[in-house]
Amino acid sequence: MSERLAILAEGLFDQSDAKTGHGVLRFGDRDVVCVVDSTQVGKTSASVVPFSRRDVPIVADVNAAQALGATTVLIGIAPGGGKLTPAWRETLLLAMSLGLNVEAGLHTLLSDDAELVAAAAQYGVEVRDLRTSPVGLSVPRLDLSRPAGIRVVHTVGTDCAIGKMTTGLELADAAKARGRQSVFVATGQTGIAITGWGIAVDHVIADYIAGAAERLIDEGATRGDLLFLEGQGSLIHPGYSGVTQGLLHGAQPDVLVLQHLAGQTVNDDYRSRPIPPLPDVVRLYEQSSAAVRPARVAAIALNTKLLDDAGAQRAIEETEALTGLVTDDVVRNGPDRLLDAVLAAVDALG
Amino acid sequence: MSERLAILAEGLFDQSDAKTGHGVLRFGDRDVVCVVDSTQVGKTSASVVPFSRRDVPIVADVNAAQALGATTVLIGIAPGGGKLTPAWRETLLLAMSLGLNVEAGLHTLLSDDAELVAAAAQYGVEVRDLRTSPVGLSVPRLDLSRPAGIRVVHTVGTDCAIGKMTTGLELADAAKARGRQSVFVATGQTGIAITGWGIAVDHVIADYIAGAAERLIDEGATRGDLLFLEGQGSLIHPGYSGVTQGLLHGAQPDVLVLQHLAGQTVNDDYRSRPIPPLPDVVRLYEQSSAAVRPARVAAIALNTKLLDDAGAQRAIEETEALTGLVTDDVVRNGPDRLLDAVLAAVDALG
Repeated sequence: MSERLAILAEGLFDQSDAKTGHGVLRFGDRDVVCVVDSTQVGKTSASVVPFSRRDVPIVADVNAAQALGATTVLIGIAPGGGKLTPAWRETLLLAMSLGLNVEAGLHTLLSDDAELVAAAAQYGVEVRDLRTSPVGLSVPRLDLSRPAGIRVVHTVGTDCAIGKMTTGLELADAAKARGRQSVFVATGQTGIAITGWGIAVDHVIADYIAGAAERLIDEGATRGDLLFLEGQGSLIHPGYSGVTQGLLHGAQPDVLVLQHLAGQTVNDDYRSRPIPPLPDVVRLYEQSSAAVRPARVAAIALNTKLLDDAGAQRAIEETEALTGLVTDDVVRNGPDRLLDAVLAAVDALG
Repeated sequence: MSERLAILAEGLFDQSDAKTGHGVLRFGDRDVVCVVDSTQVGKTSASVVPFSRRDVPIVADVNAAQALGATTVLIGIAPGGGKLTPAWRETLLLAMSLGLNVEAGLHTLLSDDAELVAAAAQYGVEVRDLRTSPVGLSVPRLDLSRPAGIRVVHTVGTDCAIGKMTTGLELADAAKARGRQSVFVATGQTGIAITGWGIAVDHVIADYIAGAAERLIDEGATRGDLLFLEGQGSLIHPGYSGVTQGLLHGAQPDVLVLQHLAGQTVNDDYRSRPIPPLPDVVRLYEQSSAAVRPARVAAIALNTKLLDDAGAQRAIEETEALTGLVTDDVVRNGPDRLLDAVLAAVDALG
């Protein structure tokens, strides 16, 4: 029996917290039968979140998901701190009692929870963690060598949860459509849920972030030569900047694409902290990368979801004027203009 | 019965690998009765390593340590990779059978070793890991509030293992001698072995580096109001920059002291990567900190151990001219000049 997902997004499917669910629906190859969110029952995924692309029913609970043929419940919410809430835990126990596998990308590992593990044994189902740290990680190779002939494009951002993964996936797909051997390299639980491989670099021992990034590039290089490395957090994010920095140095990107949510002026989680002008953020990323491998910001990926069409176009033009960089929204306008700029920067490297 | 340490440094006490032992002897308040190194029996700690400052006998084995009244064996060696060797493991088992507690700051956790745990139960002694990640860590508070009335001085660097901890300890001690309520805040296993508290931030889950730093500041604020936070790695270190960045943002320092090894031109581990001119490194740290709390580099702590007295003085003067910042070597010349500059910067904040 092939696997069919129910995406648990209780109370949050219409919010960016449900980005794991949104990403799996939009980009994933895995079969999804429904979303579970009792506050949106009777609607469909695409009607609530047009970005989700695939249209599946939204149901009230895991009982309804099982009735629709779900075999696995995936926690589709990525909360700050990555903890398993008591409510979700109860839902997972119920799902297992109904014969459903459970899967999550939290920092709280399901497989560390004795009661969940016991329930899995009792009901003959699987407990899967997307965010486990692989064995044998360490710091990067001393010579910082990189697999020959590959180029790395890294999406970085002014904040978390504003579209770095989406931009990377769209650019990788579009590059492949142009005949490039492009690969999306997942660094977080949602990307891993979508692609089936990767390392959630925010879950490894802090000393090994850069080593994990290096390993991801090694693995990506066995799959193609133009790697679109998913970004995490932001160098200006009070909570996650360490992960961002380690990823930037460990992956040694050649080209950066800076993601920004148009209109956002403060960090979404830490609202007392302003987002600096984009040229300052561009400079910070370029100066930070310079210590390991100089990387240029080749384009701005602007998320214009908060604006109407005219406002979006104006924001794109203003950002181009401000930064002097090609700017576009890959969701609203497609990836071609950004990809042109990225490939020009990559190909200019020889 | 109060605790008395035996520092295990078998075969390595005269080498920099034994830096944990050296640090505990030089800076620690904990009672140390001896060093265990069978290759140096009959000498004393200060005769082998003058930097160690406290003079205790060096004995052949843990039996001799017990005879001198030791209650705890501390592994005083910080090996590359942080692994427990079979020989040290045998020594720990022997020590426990003699009624001694065992303590280590390795990446291999003693408490993960079933045989060590069983032996501890059998002999009624304790197994202590200095590098465990505390429970309940998360990302920083959303309002980024900080305990009232405290100031944080953070030693940062151009590389790892060049003296950031030593400078912090010397400055904290000297500030206390001037009547300040100063506290050294340990972020690595050696600092924790010295002070008896702290978090080894390189061992926590990557997402929680900043949260761990925040917790350290909270704890430090219960002990004093002028905190000298130990630095880790370097923002320009290809392997450890993620830890450095997370610590910088989570701790929200007010004032930075930039540590540099005079004469060093490339990263010690990654020798293909040059160390940029110091003014560029100063700017990078100040720009990175600005996203969370602006911090100014107030002084340069220059490690001149590779130079003679005249060369050291010349290097200090050249660095002052290059950076425009007060520069000194706290080990060679004492901490007073640097402390003057640091306190001036702290007090200027009001």
